[in-house]
Amino acid sequence: MAEDAWSSYKEVAKANRDFYGAFERRDLAAMLEAWLPEERVKCVHPGWALLQGIDQVMDSWEAIFRNTESIRFELVDVTIEVLGDVAWVTNVEQIVAGDFRSAAPATNLFLRRGSGWKMLLHHASPFPVRD
Amino acid sequence: MAEDAWSSYKEVAKANRDFYGAFERRDLAAMLEAWLPEERVKCVHPGWALLQGIDQVMDSWEAIFRNTESIRFELVDVTIEVLGDVAWVTNVEQIVAGDFRSAAPATNLFLRRGSGWKMLLHHASPFPVRD
Repeated sequence: MAEDAWSSYKEVAKANRDFYGAFERRDLAAMLEAWLPEERVKCVHPGWALLQGIDQVMDSWEAIFRNTESIRFELVDVTIEVLGDVAWVTNVEQIVAGDFRSAAPATNLFLRRGSGWKMLLHHASPFPVRD
Repeated sequence: MAEDAWSSYKEVAKANRDFYGAFERRDLAAMLEAWLPEERVKCVHPGWALLQGIDQVMDSWEAIFRNTESIRFELVDVTIEVLGDVAWVTNVEQIVAGDFRSAAPATNLFLRRGSGWKMLLHHASPFPVRD
């Protein structure tokens, strides 16, 4: 991997971790910072309909943060690909929220901006965990 | 939109329709043709775990086609974006399979190849339909 590609890869990895960090801290300002503040962004939470536009997306985070006391993610099977100014990440979110354990495969798309990589799309879906 | 961009947009729209066409016809050869035949492809069916690699992905289609007598998709809320050699589509799959009605928000990623746009990632998730 060329040095530039490796540098982009690390930046995207950090943007992805920052997104989950904002989610764990239930930090709306950091969550807004993680996203592209545009109408074209898309978000699907596990079992939810497709949300479109930064307003709908941020409203959903506000509702989720309000209804979440604590949540921790362990990310497994993380793969990152970068092509020019777009990057896509897939990972499985191993979720611990109080007594609740779950896993969600997720697709995250990012676009490169002057200010860094911004989330363009987050799609997470429910997957039944076998104990 | 410049003529080249419009041309790419139409090609991606066709690749997306061809993917759902292969699904409706339960045509494994056409489904294989729709995908990038590589280890890095990813697929999440509604309620399934993350599948990786063309072998796992095609095995899943074989199993799904074997267990599906008839299926029709109406695609709504379709958005398509192209940036260089990568394109992403989101749509809601309105599904009719016999007496079964469902809807699934889906994210589809495509890469441009000499032979056309090939699917790199398909992520569809369950969404409860209100009748």
